Amino acid sequence: MTVHPVGDAHPYFPLDLHLPEYVPMQVDFDYILGVFFTAVLVVFAATWWLSGRYSHLTRGERVMSCWFMVTGLIHFVIEGWVVAKADFYKDASGNYLSDTWKEYSKADSRYASRDSFIISMEAVTAFLWGPLCPLLVWGILTAKPWRYALMLVVSVGQIYGDVLYYGTCYLEGFIHSRPEALYFWFYFVIINAIWIVVPFCCVVHAWGKISKAVAAGSGSGRKPKKA
Amino acid sequence: MTVHPVGDAHPYFPLDLHLPEYVPMQVDFDYILGVFFTAVLVVFAATWWLSGRYSHLTRGERVMSCWFMVTGLIHFVIEGWVVAKADFYKDASGNYLSDTWKEYSKADSRYASRDSFIISMEAVTAFLWGPLCPLLVWGILTAKPWRYALMLVVSVGQIYGDVLYYGTCYLEGFIHSRPEALYFWFYFVIINAIWIVVPFCCVVHAWGKISKAVAAGSGSGRKPKKA
Repeated sequence: MTVHPVGDAHPYFPLDLHLPEYVPMQVDFDYILGVFFTAVLVVFAATWWLSGRYSHLTRGERVMSCWFMVTGLIHFVIEGWVVAKADFYKDASGNYLSDTWKEYSKADSRYASRDSFIISMEAVTAFLWGPLCPLLVWGILTAKPWRYALMLVVSVGQIYGDVLYYGTCYLEGFIHSRPEALYFWFYFVIINAIWIVVPFCCVVHAWGKISKAVAAGSGSGRKPKKA
Repeated sequence: MTVHPVGDAHPYFPLDLHLPEYVPMQVDFDYILGVFFTAVLVVFAATWWLSGRYSHLTRGERVMSCWFMVTGLIHFVIEGWVVAKADFYKDASGNYLSDTWKEYSKADSRYASRDSFIISMEAVTAFLWGPLCPLLVWGILTAKPWRYALMLVVSVGQIYGDVLYYGTCYLEGFIHSRPEALYFWFYFVIINAIWIVVPFCCVVHAWGKISKAVAAGSGSGRKPKKA
């Protein structure tokens, strides 16, 4: 598909999107992805090491700790940035986070056009789920009694936000994404799908733990009784 | 504030909203509210009576059963209707549900204009939270071990959907609501606030029950141990 920019010279779809003062990315695509995946690996490895000091944790719980630390930092730092910096697409400073969002906006221009759903959902994700994730990691490491309840809250929030993210795109006919496979399939479909698949596993885990604990009678101390 | 309809003759804000073939409400405003509040009272009373046959339930749990039965029916029937019937504002049949949405659209015209967030959020609310609510009532009545987990999931979903509902309106400058107090304050602000206040109480209840059960050691059977 040949792309003919209309009006403002930006790489985003739909092509007639009005984004005056757009400044092209200052850093390279491979630099952005390289830094991102390196940071993810470092945080994952550090949390894995830390969780190894808590010998009561299963391997699955250690992996979940790593997940919540990584996703919490992504929420707070990366998604927090796009909420706070409405004009990231004009940023000429070469700021890593602004350029990351210039790149991701190729998969979803609603970040640049400040779509009201996107900004609302990202605000909750960044500033509520974001800080709750490291809190949950602490809860998992120290076996706090509220850890499964918090896991359920955060994971349901992540799934619901993501379902609405896909749902709104579907209803609008996917007009905000560039058609190339990298943008539509990798960034938009696959990367976002992670926040449905992994939280769903966490919901299943927390649901099972909660049900088992409640079934043990500690939840109410009462038996169902029909008059 | 004097209202001067522009273009299509409909009562919705913004006044230049394009809604061709709009058909005015066929039934009266007081009929709509009368049927609604009567139905709510009947369902509440019926569930209260039913829950009275389960003698293990506290008064609070009986009230919660009533809440989830009422909210589940509102989700599935009323909110389900607006998702399924995209052209409700053209409905000349006097259908109660279509006219209910013609009335509510005065508080939020995004239902008539098929805003992608509204329809996505209402689809999840109607067809996921909707059926899960009576399932939860059954779980509460029969003291199923998953009842607190499900309560947390549904209530967090309701709160998050409602927060995004307010958030998107705020970011768009509340342009979709008529300015009269009945529409803005009663329908838009107060009625929707119910779905933050009551689910929040349910989250607190479920959170407490879950934490207590997990703390009793049934959750994992293991103690936190730092190496």
